Formats: sequence, C-alpha cells, structure tokens
Amino acid sequence: MKLLRYGPPGQEKPGLLDAEGRIRDLSAHVADIAGEALSPAGLARLKAIDPASLPLVEGTPRLGPCVAGTGKFICIGLNYSDHAAETGATVPPEPIIFMKATSAIVGPNDDLEIPRGSTKTDWEVELGVIIGKTAKYVSEAEAMDHVAGYCVINDVSERAFQTERHGQWTKGKSADTFGPTGPWLVTADEVPDPQNLGMWLEVNGHRFQDGSTRTMVYGVRHLVSYLSQFMSLRPGDIISTGTPPGVGLGQKPQVFLKEGDEVTLGVEGLGSQRQRVVQG
Amino acid sequence: MKLLRYGPPGQEKPGLLDAEGRIRDLSAHVADIAGEALSPAGLARLKAIDPASLPLVEGTPRLGPCVAGTGKFICIGLNYSDHAAETGATVPPEPIIFMKATSAIVGPNDDLEIPRGSTKTDWEVELGVIIGKTAKYVSEAEAMDHVAGYCVINDVSERAFQTERHGQWTKGKSADTFGPTGPWLVTADEVPDPQNLGMWLEVNGHRFQDGSTRTMVYGVRHLVSYLSQFMSLRPGDIISTGTPPGVGLGQKPQVFLKEGDEVTLGVEGLGSQRQRVVQG
Repeated sequence: MKLLRYGPPGQEKPGLLDAEGRIRDLSAHVADIAGEALSPAGLARLKAIDPASLPLVEGTPRLGPCVAGTGKFICIGLNYSDHAAETGATVPPEPIIFMKATSAIVGPNDDLEIPRGSTKTDWEVELGVIIGKTAKYVSEAEAMDHVAGYCVINDVSERAFQTERHGQWTKGKSADTFGPTGPWLVTADEVPDPQNLGMWLEVNGHRFQDGSTRTMVYGVRHLVSYLSQFMSLRPGDIISTGTPPGVGLGQKPQVFLKEGDEVTLGVEGLGSQRQRVVQG
Repeated sequence: MKLLRYGPPGQEKPGLLDAEGRIRDLSAHVADIAGEALSPAGLARLKAIDPASLPLVEGTPRLGPCVAGTGKFICIGLNYSDHAAETGATVPPEPIIFMKATSAIVGPNDDLEIPRGSTKTDWEVELGVIIGKTAKYVSEAEAMDHVAGYCVINDVSERAFQTERHGQWTKGKSADTFGPTGPWLVTADEVPDPQNLGMWLEVNGHRFQDGSTRTMVYGVRHLVSYLSQFMSLRPGDIISTGTPPGVGLGQKPQVFLKEGDEVTLGVEGLGSQRQRVVQG
C-alpha cells in the first residue's frame, strides 16, 4: 500500500494511492496515518479494504507529510562511504545518530525555507524508515518486524549552523521545512529489498545526487536494532538513513540553495518530491 | 499556578496544586497540560478558576511528566562554567544544543532505568523551561512572552554512550526514563527571576550537586531567542538549560548510578523529584 495524508497543513486527512495513482479517502477507516494504524494489525486492516470501495478524492490536493504523530526524527550521519569521503570525514565504526526537530517535518512539495542568516543551505536525499511497532532492545533478526514502511526524505541541512556554530549537528538540521517527508509511506511488504533502491536529487534540473541504498554502510535491519539499544523506537518515529554523495558541500566549488531554486528528488519505488526554495 | 498531571502512565489527568499542597482535578476545564492550555490566554483562563471550586483528588496518585504533547526536548550543553571545567571542557562561545528523545520523558518519581550495556549512567539536575507560545526568530526582548513556566528536569546521561560510542551526544541522552520532568510546571508569573534559583541533587542522601541558576552562562531569555533562530519552538516544547557542577563524571574517582540507588533533586520553588534506580 501507498499511504498518504492530503489537505491543508495541520488538517490533513488519511488517504491511499490506488493502482491508477489516484487518491482515495481513508478517513472512514482510520483517524490518521499514525500510531496504531501503523502496527502490523493496523496495516492488515487497511490492506483488507478494497480500494475501489473508497471515495475518490477530487482534484490535486496538497500532500502533507505521509506520517503523523512522529515523536522522534532520528538521522544517521555519514552512512554512505562515498558521501563521508566527499565531506572529508571517515566512515564511523558504529552509526552516528543525530536528531532533527520534529517541527521541521513538512509535506513533500511544500516550500523549502532558507533560514534567516543562512549562507549554506544544502540538500540530502535519503531513505526514510517509518516505525510501526515499539522497538526496545530488539535483535537484528526481529528488527524488520518493527518497520511499517519507507518514504523519501530530504534531510535539508544548514552547513554553517551544523559545523561552524559550535556543538551538535542538530543546530543545522532543525529549521522549519528542513524535513520534507513523503509523498507516501510505501508499506514494507512492497519493498522487498530496502538495500537496493536507486535514489537521486536535482537542483534546477541538474543532477547532483545519483546513488543507491546498496552503498549504505549500516543497513536498515542493523539501524533499527542498533537504535533500539539506545532509545525506544515508537510507532510514527522516522529514521532517515543517510545520504549518498552529491551534496552541495561536496561540490568544487561548493554549491548551496538560493531563493527561487527548485529541488526535485526521489527514491526508487517510493515516489518523488519537488520543493521551491524561498527565503524564510 | 502549579500545574501537574496525575494518574497511571499514559492516562494522566490535568491537575493543579493548591496553596495547601493538595491536588485538585482540572479535567473539567482543560483536556491536558499541553498545547493551547499553555498559551498566555490558556493560562489566564486557568488562573481565573477558584481552586476551592475544583474537586480534591484523594490519596497520593503517581505524578506524570508535568507537560504533555512535547514535540522537542532540547538541551543546552556545558551551560555552567564550573560544570564545563569539571568535565574538562571549556565554555562554548555560543550555546551548545542537543536533543533528548521525547520518549525519555517520565514522571518525576518514576523508576530510573539503567540501560542494558551501560556502565556510566549519570545525573544532571537542571532548570526546565516550558514553551507556551510558538517562537520563531524572536528577539531577547520578546523571548520571555513565549515561556509558560518552569520545572525540574533530571537530564540523565550515559557517559560512555554519549562520548565513547561515536558521534553526537543524543546517543547517551535518550534512553527510556532519562528525562524525569516535574513534579509540576510553575507558571512564569510565580518565578520572578529564573536566574536566581538554588538547585541540588543527592544520591543515597549524599549531596553531589549544590548550585544556582545564577552561574548559568546563557540565561533563559537568551536561550529562547537563540534557539528560535535555528528552529521553531512550540507549545509544550521543553528546554533543559544545563547543569551545575557535581555530576558523577566529575568526581574523583568517578561515580555512576547502580541498581538500588536513590536519586533526589530539586530546584528552588519548583519542587523535588525522587527516583529509584533499576536495571533496564
């Protein structure tokens, strides 16, 4: 299934993308794409519904973030060996964890705001993992049972805030609109191998990132198990698993986003995003 | 006002501590101590209620975290010059921000779980600031209008996870039960000077921390304004403002928590907490 949320910010309704790519209204069946609806039982209930029985949504509504009730937006740093190299870092001996503010989460095609005072707003296409069932001290063997599905994330990053303003990366990762999430949550049953998905990102039609989750250092199974040793993962939590090479910071000379730019990005099988860059 | 939440985990009701220290039930007036209830208008509505008109709560129920709907649990690192010194660090030229997982938040007297694999679970008494109104790019002059109130926080920290397991501090700050919050939210009108509050922490009756918010490097007004340049602060968000000297890491030899320990801590005018240490 491809689950989504549509409508104005803060008033999104749950929906489903049918085989013809049309939005169907799920609000008679579930309050939101959140919490219990993401559990194995919750997803099984949704899967049992005949999409043709659901009301068609007219027009082309705005898409919101594809999941609600996200308590944690956890990111993995330097998780592609070639991206680590382009930033001048080495691959860490265990995963680097940082947090993005949940207030950074927006819809996949919402405007991307350059924060005031920013000179180095950058992009990062990533595979997002959405937790469906609480995970605490889970083994790698059990880890995938806790994954509801996957989505596209743009882990937007202000490099000066991140690395030149002292302390932890969260400072450069958390501005409003820095977490476009969606267009839809593709349930795990439709993603047989999350470690073999092409991914790309373009700015104004120029392709900067062109990679694959094949070159991820720590894969999804390991990350879910690993993270669950340090904190409980809960339904609706998002793990953004790191970015392949091609960020603006890695260009020679460096390239950063400016007002009026258009960013497009996607992950194989998970759809694509399009953001217009505006000044915040 | 002293606002609180009482009842079993996940089923807390909103309450108020009256002048005699008794809990009064607020649930006829507000759904929870969260969101709109924390706004200036929301707090004014609660303040207009005669506490004597509210039902008395019988017995001594468990206290939950004093605020709900926390989207971000933002912490400030090395924000007391003498604490920075004891950890071997220098005071940073601007605030260090890191995030604690919101899933770490528990009631003030709930058990404190040592995570599996931990050898260095440590304590940090802190002044918590609770946001009442969205703050984005606010000046220092406006900053205090966005503060609903204050509470005690224990910023429990696993030092090996924090500094020996690679990358960002969030890894050692986020385990379940690592964020005891409360006992109550004391509204800002009852805390005329948040930069002049005594604070203390004891383990098994031995006083390890005995400080004052007077020696905070970056005060509340600055922190709210500063943080709002990097992310929106929203109602229910918590800022934990750093700890004075006396953490276990700073002892010679170092001291860390073990099963069966009892941690008590408090901030002047904001009440106290008591945690029993258990193995997770």
